[in-house]
Amino acid sequence: MPINIAVIGAGAWGIALSLQMARTGANVYLWSRKELPNPTTHTLSRLDCVSIPETITVSNQFPTKADIVFLAVPLQYMRSILPYMPPTAPLIACCKGVETTSLKFPLEILEEIYPKREHGALSGPNFAHEVAKSYPTASVIASKNPKLAQELANKLSTSTFRLYANTDPIGVEIGGAAKNVFAIAAGIAMGAGLGENARASIITRGIAELSRLSTGLGGDPMTLSGLAGVGDMILTCTGQGSRNYSLGFELGQGKKLKDILAQRTTVTEGVTTAPAILQRATQHHVITPIIEAVTHILNEEITIQTAQNILMSRPLGNE
Amino acid sequence: MPINIAVIGAGAWGIALSLQMARTGANVYLWSRKELPNPTTHTLSRLDCVSIPETITVSNQFPTKADIVFLAVPLQYMRSILPYMPPTAPLIACCKGVETTSLKFPLEILEEIYPKREHGALSGPNFAHEVAKSYPTASVIASKNPKLAQELANKLSTSTFRLYANTDPIGVEIGGAAKNVFAIAAGIAMGAGLGENARASIITRGIAELSRLSTGLGGDPMTLSGLAGVGDMILTCTGQGSRNYSLGFELGQGKKLKDILAQRTTVTEGVTTAPAILQRATQHHVITPIIEAVTHILNEEITIQTAQNILMSRPLGNE
Repeated sequence: MPINIAVIGAGAWGIALSLQMARTGANVYLWSRKELPNPTTHTLSRLDCVSIPETITVSNQFPTKADIVFLAVPLQYMRSILPYMPPTAPLIACCKGVETTSLKFPLEILEEIYPKREHGALSGPNFAHEVAKSYPTASVIASKNPKLAQELANKLSTSTFRLYANTDPIGVEIGGAAKNVFAIAAGIAMGAGLGENARASIITRGIAELSRLSTGLGGDPMTLSGLAGVGDMILTCTGQGSRNYSLGFELGQGKKLKDILAQRTTVTEGVTTAPAILQRATQHHVITPIIEAVTHILNEEITIQTAQNILMSRPLGNE
Repeated sequence: MPINIAVIGAGAWGIALSLQMARTGANVYLWSRKELPNPTTHTLSRLDCVSIPETITVSNQFPTKADIVFLAVPLQYMRSILPYMPPTAPLIACCKGVETTSLKFPLEILEEIYPKREHGALSGPNFAHEVAKSYPTASVIASKNPKLAQELANKLSTSTFRLYANTDPIGVEIGGAAKNVFAIAAGIAMGAGLGENARASIITRGIAELSRLSTGLGGDPMTLSGLAGVGDMILTCTGQGSRNYSLGFELGQGKKLKDILAQRTTVTEGVTTAPAILQRATQHHVITPIIEAVTHILNEEITIQTAQNILMSRPLGNE
């Protein structure tokens, strides 16, 4: 019997996930806020022209039953749709970030709303347009329940989409949220002409900051060295087309944040994530110098040169 | 009293290191195989036009005394100059790779030739031309003697060159040697049009392979998540101008290895490092699927498509 998978959210990632899940032979139900014609050729700038096959049911009605639910709506919007989820199915968060009102990561929201439901997080270096086109991709499925993680990895992996099971959703969610902040930092370094040594060091020392944060929140520091940490950081901090990286680049060139944001119609997540993660880190007494520097630069409290001086003159320690 | 630093080897990295060490106020003695005029404007393609100040003594005579010796000659050449080192000074290997005749990493050669001398390794995401120009850079100084590592980090760090002490030279040397193999793998993926998800995953799963190898050789797996692992991998696998990456890219486009090598006058280290590291890994019963795939592709034993199929169909496991 094919399993029934519901994907909530028909943005680029929701569509790419639906296509990938359909490749496993599952019945896929894709919830879209606006109804899409089905079958349809859905044009999205980052997905080029992707055709949704008839095996995927698209609807603006929430599904009434499913074996697994993938939540692919923007995080700030997730809480509002949670009351409408089908019963009993494990909920897998596929959105990344920190809810700005509560400072919570996605699974912390799921735990609050559905304390008795099984849940997990899907994360990794996954550009949606590449997954949509079956480019080879690796990703992580994390759950506190090792059996669920392994079962989903086995059921949902294909020859082009390889899922690794992971039992540390905390580390996975930290990586997914913070990558945008480090993409801004990497962009600043490159925009300011500081060079590739600096960018590589920012990403690497960023992993060290996030590993400490993971430990502080009860997670595993090693998770950040995996696909949802290092992998996603590499993609976001060096891959083309990251909104956060390009915002950082413009800041590095000397532009003002308000002028950069005024020219954008899309959200640049790292701008709101930076102070939110810094606040979480401070609550747990974890020192995150680069996240702190990015936050202060975004707030125009320090210049890029001052940030560089602060970061380069911190007490010398062990790696 | 300023310390006396000898830098052995006046290639791009040796010159950049000499300039950096001179900035600490040290007396620097730079040994060059061919004597360079001093002061000189030394033109190197990757260093642009760098002027060597008079505070650096350049000579083709080996130094007779020094407080620290940095070895910046090509690794395959290192053994031949070791008999001429000044007495007692700690020896710091700044070259990366595996000696093809012995399969040894640099410090293993130093341990063989100078079993009673202190030694260490300097490694990290360090493009020489950026260090030469004082671009902000972070690096790792590793020694089994924690006191030596910390002392060198304190003495040699400046406001643009930040050294982290590390006590795991094994992990550091594995990262430095293997990055070229993964740069070939990343280049293959991009040349074959497999996309950025694939490249990010190759680098990340590469870190996992090297962490296992470090454990197998008695080192620390976490070292590979640091500057000499992740940091150097990012620089080599995504930065412009890596000979190993470009070789991989051409392989990915379908060119033959012998045709690519025939057009090159410089050494592409990863080509000889891949089978050497694979042999070391096999000796220690460590499984390194990506290094193995690169080796077999270089030997024309498998196609890129076959390598992709093998890597994507391995048993699914935990991260």
